[in-house]
Amino acid sequence: MTSTINVNLPQQSYEIAIAPASLDQLGQSMANLQLGQKVVLVSNPSIFKHYGERAIASLQSAGFNVASYCLPAGERYKTLNSIQKLYDVALENRLERSSTMVALGGGVIGDMTGFAAATWLRGINVVQVPTTLLAMVDSAIGGKTGVNHPNGKNLIGAFHQPRLVLIDPEVLKTLPMREFRAGMAEVIKYGVIWDEELFTQMEASKHLNQLRYMKPELLNEILTRSCQAKADVVGKDEKEGGLRAILNYGHTIGHAIESLTGYRLVNHGEAVAIGMVAAGQIAVNLGMWQQAETDRQNAIVQKAGLPTKLPAGVDIAAIIDALQLDKKVKAGKVRFVLPTQIGVVTVTDQVPADVIQQVLQGMQ
Amino acid sequence: MTSTINVNLPQQSYEIAIAPASLDQLGQSMANLQLGQKVVLVSNPSIFKHYGERAIASLQSAGFNVASYCLPAGERYKTLNSIQKLYDVALENRLERSSTMVALGGGVIGDMTGFAAATWLRGINVVQVPTTLLAMVDSAIGGKTGVNHPNGKNLIGAFHQPRLVLIDPEVLKTLPMREFRAGMAEVIKYGVIWDEELFTQMEASKHLNQLRYMKPELLNEILTRSCQAKADVVGKDEKEGGLRAILNYGHTIGHAIESLTGYRLVNHGEAVAIGMVAAGQIAVNLGMWQQAETDRQNAIVQKAGLPTKLPAGVDIAAIIDALQLDKKVKAGKVRFVLPTQIGVVTVTDQVPADVIQQVLQGMQ
Ligand SMILES: NC(=O)c1ccc[n+]([C@@H]2O[C@H](COP(=O)([O-])OP(=O)(O)OC[C@H]3O[C@@H](n4cnc5c(N)ncnc54)[C@H](O)[C@@H]3O)[C@@H](O)[C@H]2O)c1
Ligand SMILES: NC(=O)c1ccc[n+]([C@@H]2O[C@H](COP(=O)([O-])OP(=O)(O)OC[C@H]3O[C@@H](n4cnc5c(N)ncnc54)[C@H](O)[C@@H]3O)[C@@H](O)[C@H]2O)c1
Ligand SMILES: [Zn+2]
Ligand SMILES: [Zn+2]
Repeated sequence: MTSTINVNLPQQSYEIAIAPASLDQLGQSMANLQLGQKVVLVSNPSIFKHYGERAIASLQSAGFNVASYCLPAGERYKTLNSIQKLYDVALENRLERSSTMVALGGGVIGDMTGFAAATWLRGINVVQVPTTLLAMVDSAIGGKTGVNHPNGKNLIGAFHQPRLVLIDPEVLKTLPMREFRAGMAEVIKYGVIWDEELFTQMEASKHLNQLRYMKPELLNEILTRSCQAKADVVGKDEKEGGLRAILNYGHTIGHAIESLTGYRLVNHGEAVAIGMVAAGQIAVNLGMWQQAETDRQNAIVQKAGLPTKLPAGVDIAAIIDALQLDKKVKAGKVRFVLPTQIGVVTVTDQVPADVIQQVLQGMQ
Repeated sequence: MTSTINVNLPQQSYEIAIAPASLDQLGQSMANLQLGQKVVLVSNPSIFKHYGERAIASLQSAGFNVASYCLPAGERYKTLNSIQKLYDVALENRLERSSTMVALGGGVIGDMTGFAAATWLRGINVVQVPTTLLAMVDSAIGGKTGVNHPNGKNLIGAFHQPRLVLIDPEVLKTLPMREFRAGMAEVIKYGVIWDEELFTQMEASKHLNQLRYMKPELLNEILTRSCQAKADVVGKDEKEGGLRAILNYGHTIGHAIESLTGYRLVNHGEAVAIGMVAAGQIAVNLGMWQQAETDRQNAIVQKAGLPTKLPAGVDIAAIIDALQLDKKVKAGKVRFVLPTQIGVVTVTDQVPADVIQQVLQGMQ
């Protein structure tokens, strides 16, 4: 079961290659793209322990000159300070414009490696080798890169498309269960915003909350369809001029919850799950969507082991305040992505605060 | 005497507006572009003292909400640390994607403001209001932005085109003479690489080394033709895939000299002047150019008060070593831009080290 998805962009197109054991093909796949000889592989210690050697061996046997560097694990190291470390590594290894940084890890490593590559010599190659479900279906694709400001997530960044996204589903075997579920939130998102078929496949499946209960065929469908959805949207709107905003479904309230819980209590996927439940209900209350449909969505969210209620102790007024700080605010108005049917959403900044309030109260 | 030059790019085109006293039109010009309401003006204390209030008054009277921030003056503050300060200012002022950073200053302020704008929220608007000759004819145009790494100049950066470049030649009145001359080096460069007419106008002019001896007509020609040259080249090759490399005429050896003299003894324009003299002679020694032509070039360099000899104490072997560290190195080979006639250059990585050595020895 291998699939290849093309991300078609005006300036630079690239492939998402999905295949079991493809980690061992990393070097060959990069050699096919005729990238320069020098490679810096970036990872974190726990991911590197599992997969670092295989990646390096593959790169070396394809003739690349490889150095590697591990940043400490965790979102709290997603800072400009870590980027400075990557710059130092780039300098030590005398990376040239034709050189490549390879991100072997989840979204944190992917975003940082992408940003360092975007800004070293005004842009060198980056190859994404995502190792979390979230990174595979979301963060590794589409060229958003960046780090956090001490006072706000992902405020610092650049658009920088990878030359290749290489997905080896087998690496998910070592991924902690909670991380797997977090990735499922984004997969459910694609079902609601873009791909009704993906939605109904998840609806029909008995288990969604653990990898080991999932049939390889379903996992392959999930990866392929999710990547295709992201590639479609990004291909139509690379820099978030319009359409790409739909990828923020569930993220408006999700981000507020993440930030209010200090990015610890609730992880990104869980926050997005809560945000999707809220957005679905807002759409219903505004008369744009059916209650039965949002119930179907929420059933999938629950089956994936994700929350559908607000975390205890989070203040509703604080959520509404936090919405104002969101990057998605335009001229002071909060933008919401709301479903109108399974597979179709619309973007609006016309959601009255009392509707938000009412919906959130119902989720306590 | 006003001129408007268009920089035509696939993703975003913009104007270079050259007009005396146009600083007072800054707000109106930006309003015409329908940029968002929030503006952060970035400058340094000495430039701000001269022109800050006028710029702010113009912005405010056009209805913008303006904050301003001064970074300390000097290349040694062109660091990631300064960028972090700009991020803090962006956050404090809640800049949105439609907001604008205005760079009021020379290349140092322009490069940093551009980079901060490139990477805040993955890219907000930047408007360049260059106040040095070098920034007017070179750094403000073309979207190269960035800062220095402790071990190398401009290693960190991004491409980010301005929405507008507004040039008020009158601000050059307060520019120190040595800075004016430094800018003249880039002007001479355009004459050699692109615009024979500009070259012959400089050749015909009695004075080139001080603004106050220069006729306003000549200054206008210098600004307009130089900006047009840069716009032409950038329009044909935005991201330095090929043609744009010709802008590095004089810069290969120039950069080596700057770095060996610790960016203090010799300024950028002086180093480029020396680099052009060297490149011209290399071209002659390789049989690509006439001695008489390089002598014409060198006469203009001298008339502009710029050096044509190596600074005392700089070791030739060290220059040749330093060339290897240059960003323009590709697969280990040093690239040179060499003239073949006035207004035409070629790019080559086939310059034998002994030719470089011999030419540099002749310049001691
Ligand atoms: N660029 C984008 O478009 C985009 C989109 C969504 C999210 N993001 C970013 O992605 C980040 C979240 O990414 P994430 O969810 O992948 O988290 P993560 O990168 O922090 O990884 C989660 C944890 O799993 C571990 N891990 C990763 N792969 C593993 C494996 N195969 N086996 C064992 N352990 C493994 C990591 O060490 C880490 O502790 C956030 O910073 C978010 O802002 C970016
Ligand atoms: N982005 C590009 O394409 C590009 C191209 C060339 C150079 N650069 C960069 O530009 C920088 C050099 O720029 P620069 O030569 O403009 O130097 P600069 O910005 O350091 O300015 C030189 C000095 O003049 C002062 N000054 C500026 N305008 C003045 C005015 N009108 N009146 C009085 N004083 C004034 C400044 O305070 C400073 O002390 C370097 O960092 C270089 O890397 C960038
Ligand atoms: Zn997400
Ligand atoms: Zn220059």
